[in-house]
Amino acid sequence: MRSRIAWSDAQSIHVHGFDLCQELLGKLDLGSMAFLQLVHRMPTPQESVVFNALLVSLVEHGITPSTLSARLTLLGAPEALQGAVAAGLLGLGTTFVGTIEGAARIVQENPLTSRIPEEVDGLADSIVVKFVEQRQPIPGVGHPIHKPVDPRAERLFDLAREHRIDDSGEVLIRAVSRAAERRLQRSLPVNVTGAVGAIATTLGVPWGVTRGLGLMARTVGLVGHLLEELEQPIARSIWYQAEEQAHAEVHSKPKGDR
Amino acid sequence: MRSRIAWSDAQSIHVHGFDLCQELLGKLDLGSMAFLQLVHRMPTPQESVVFNALLVSLVEHGITPSTLSARLTLLGAPEALQGAVAAGLLGLGTTFVGTIEGAARIVQENPLTSRIPEEVDGLADSIVVKFVEQRQPIPGVGHPIHKPVDPRAERLFDLAREHRIDDSGEVLIRAVSRAAERRLQRSLPVNVTGAVGAIATTLGVPWGVTRGLGLMARTVGLVGHLLEELEQPIARSIWYQAEEQAHAEVHSKPKGDR
Amino acid sequence: MRSRIAWSDAQSIHVHGFDLCQELLGKLDLGSMAFLQLVHRMPTPQESVVFNALLVSLVEHGITPSTLSARLTLLGAPEALQGAVAAGLLGLGTTFVGTIEGAARIVQENPLTSRIPEEVDGLADSIVVKFVEQRQPIPGVGHPIHKPVDPRAERLFDLAREHRIDDSGEVLIRAVSRAAERRLQRSLPVNVTGAVGAIATTLGVPWGVTRGLGLMARTVGLVGHLLEELEQPIARSIWYQAEEQAHAEVHSKPKGDR
Amino acid sequence: MRSRIAWSDAQSIHVHGFDLCQELLGKLDLGSMAFLQLVHRMPTPQESVVFNALLVSLVEHGITPSTLSARLTLLGAPEALQGAVAAGLLGLGTTFVGTIEGAARIVQENPLTSRIPEEVDGLADSIVVKFVEQRQPIPGVGHPIHKPVDPRAERLFDLAREHRIDDSGEVLIRAVSRAAERRLQRSLPVNVTGAVGAIATTLGVPWGVTRGLGLMARTVGLVGHLLEELEQPIARSIWYQAEEQAHAEVHSKPKGDR
Repeated sequence: MRSRIAWSDAQSIHVHGFDLCQELLGKLDLGSMAFLQLVHRMPTPQESVVFNALLVSLVEHGITPSTLSARLTLLGAPEALQGAVAAGLLGLGTTFVGTIEGAARIVQENPLTSRIPEEVDGLADSIVVKFVEQRQPIPGVGHPIHKPVDPRAERLFDLAREHRIDDSGEVLIRAVSRAAERRLQRSLPVNVTGAVGAIATTLGVPWGVTRGLGLMARTVGLVGHLLEELEQPIARSIWYQAEEQAHAEVHSKPKGDR
Repeated sequence: MRSRIAWSDAQSIHVHGFDLCQELLGKLDLGSMAFLQLVHRMPTPQESVVFNALLVSLVEHGITPSTLSARLTLLGAPEALQGAVAAGLLGLGTTFVGTIEGAARIVQENPLTSRIPEEVDGLADSIVVKFVEQRQPIPGVGHPIHKPVDPRAERLFDLAREHRIDDSGEVLIRAVSRAAERRLQRSLPVNVTGAVGAIATTLGVPWGVTRGLGLMARTVGLVGHLLEELEQPIARSIWYQAEEQAHAEVHSKPKGDR
Repeated sequence: MRSRIAWSDAQSIHVHGFDLCQELLGKLDLGSMAFLQLVHRMPTPQESVVFNALLVSLVEHGITPSTLSARLTLLGAPEALQGAVAAGLLGLGTTFVGTIEGAARIVQENPLTSRIPEEVDGLADSIVVKFVEQRQPIPGVGHPIHKPVDPRAERLFDLAREHRIDDSGEVLIRAVSRAAERRLQRSLPVNVTGAVGAIATTLGVPWGVTRGLGLMARTVGLVGHLLEELEQPIARSIWYQAEEQAHAEVHSKPKGDR
Repeated sequence: MRSRIAWSDAQSIHVHGFDLCQELLGKLDLGSMAFLQLVHRMPTPQESVVFNALLVSLVEHGITPSTLSARLTLLGAPEALQGAVAAGLLGLGTTFVGTIEGAARIVQENPLTSRIPEEVDGLADSIVVKFVEQRQPIPGVGHPIHKPVDPRAERLFDLAREHRIDDSGEVLIRAVSRAAERRLQRSLPVNVTGAVGAIATTLGVPWGVTRGLGLMARTVGLVGHLLEELEQPIARSIWYQAEEQAHAEVHSKPKGDR
């Protein structure tokens, strides 16, 4: 039973083997600190730019189920900001940020052994077939609004290439997107979670904690929304409106009609 | 009813008025994005270094009630990493990171109107008296291990000065520390949460969301602990040991003895 | 370090000194089990009826911030029902069920020493004055819809009297209601949380965990709402509608306008 | 968009078509209210006894990861009891109470069409084979301590039969237990979650919310543990002990050794 992440004595605090005060504070941004936590070494300057970009791309999505839940929770429990943030994070499951995990898992469980287009496409086809047969959505591709391309995914791939991050993940997830489009006959571009999953893989993040990238980023976003809620509250209006609509029909119903 | 933080259409996503893909991705680290969320403008390069240092100082404290709670939760619900992180955040209340809020509130509600030592000390005395009279701990000062100084606080103040951040907050919180030491006759150095609260104030973060800095930083830390828990689990040992100790005495007790 | 609540060996499980299988299962309802947990003895049949009524009165309030938050969370994380329930509970803070705690605290910190009307009213006045001076709401009185009386409070007090529960709590909280109405010149009837706080006090529940009665009851309510959400989902409509309204004005705004 | 569970006007509150004050308060215990929420009708007296017994069997398991997490959270955030309860619930996932869901799903997806022993055993075998082939644990059977039988399961089945609840669920889950024992050659008795899943099915609870029975019951248990924690705290000892052990080895490690 041991933990090797951090320890301290009266004079110093060590994190992943580095002296916090002397070697980390002032020398490392929060995103690079996250890299250190997940990859157990310092990022190169190039890796730091790209890893931070992955996180920044996930911070904000405006009004979502997650930010609504956080705002509604703050209305009931203003004494505990941590509870409102936690309520927001709890909605970051399989439907939304969980797709990062799915995309990263695809890339980590199917390492590219060739870049010959036919072989890559064959691998991608075999991946897509499994999801389709199990009637499961293919993680990392498709978006209700951003099509034919998700501009965030494209920008992240561009950044990764500019900073000389190996592009194996991109090659495979793009092939998966094409294979899915062929098979399902609709626009299924690589979306932002697909790009994050693919690039995080190359940077060394195990797929089982890639959902954590979304959690880190969205905590930043949720605190921003709670600040706005404190300044210009909307939770009470959302509540009243939902209550009125949801109960509109039932007030006159006889007992036991369900 | 409106939210001005983020919005999007098929081609672009805007966050706080900036085009996410063109103006933020690759140009901004996660800590600076957090600054943008809380202060509603881009940080200067100097502000970015200091603000990131505040966040990095809060990421890791090793084995704490918060990281234990997250690890124990993952043991029971491995399907939902978000639940384990949320459980960890829920313990970041008044006892621990809440002191950032208290320290920031002191600084924001008592703006320095003079730097004459006697006047600063008088202000600090009046602040300390209120806490002592209400038998409440003085936020931002004192540490069980790190004394006579908390090296993280000193390093953060040094960084802030080096990067030409106004030091009004530091001046007041150091005076509060001295006033508290005089009155309570024990070592009560400014601790890391005191430094964070004071410097965050100068950077423009409202005290009501300063607890959010701890939440952002610790989410990074919690995901790191959950990765370690997946690789080298300790939660089950902690559980069995606690169970054995807590129940040791009671197995032979007669019914109704309490 | 010990816990005396429950322990077990291969043949038996004991809870608060009772054999779970032989003495509790089939002989005790869930509300009485809650009484056993909080008061450390079996309720009498009369106490059981009244304590269950307190809990049942708190189970359902239809569409509230708490049930909305739970439903929105399930939309994002259908894999973890426990996360959706937890998100719902997190909104049960000082604004809503926390008032049970406030009312119970009033009654527990101000034991009736006389039933002479003038003395009771004097005590109530002194209590009300403190809240008014600190500009804090008086817990347990007032309701936006249920006035001039909250029918649930009246019914709970009737039940308590019918079942011969001591009415000291009722006497005081009613006097607090009258004192508040005199001072603030508006209708402030004892509401359901005031009645629950007063009666729970008489039954022996320490005020520091009376918020727990709301948590127990609302967990029952939240699971009911999540079942309805699975069968007739409304979360996605609430999200889309809130998103559209919240962003309506800002799409055409120039950058940097805030 | 509508919700039919509860609505109210100034004079009355209705829940599932019943007048809360006139028809529910004082006439219904909390467990029966839970039945009403999940099955949308009043339980018979027999059903009420059995359903309450299911819930009561799940309330207490002493010191568990869930109760530890709640206690550790209260230490950090004593201002928010709801956060500590939520942290405890978040650990009630697939490892522990999730097995109720698994057992209920088996029974609901494999309705008994015959009671001829060979046919029941054949059905059970086919169920067990699927789990074994997918290398997944068989939900509802096996217990580390309670063997060769789990006394709670036996008691619940006895109660159900005494109260004339149809025993189809029991017949199948016992056959699954025997089939699992034959195939895996070890003791795998029906455990308490298997019994709860089977009986809840007969009572009409959809498997997708059976995890909710555990959440309702454990909320009662968690509030009990938090009361004990307030009176006789153990969280700090658990923390210090875990911290000391986890860091014991690493203090002298050179940097970068992982």
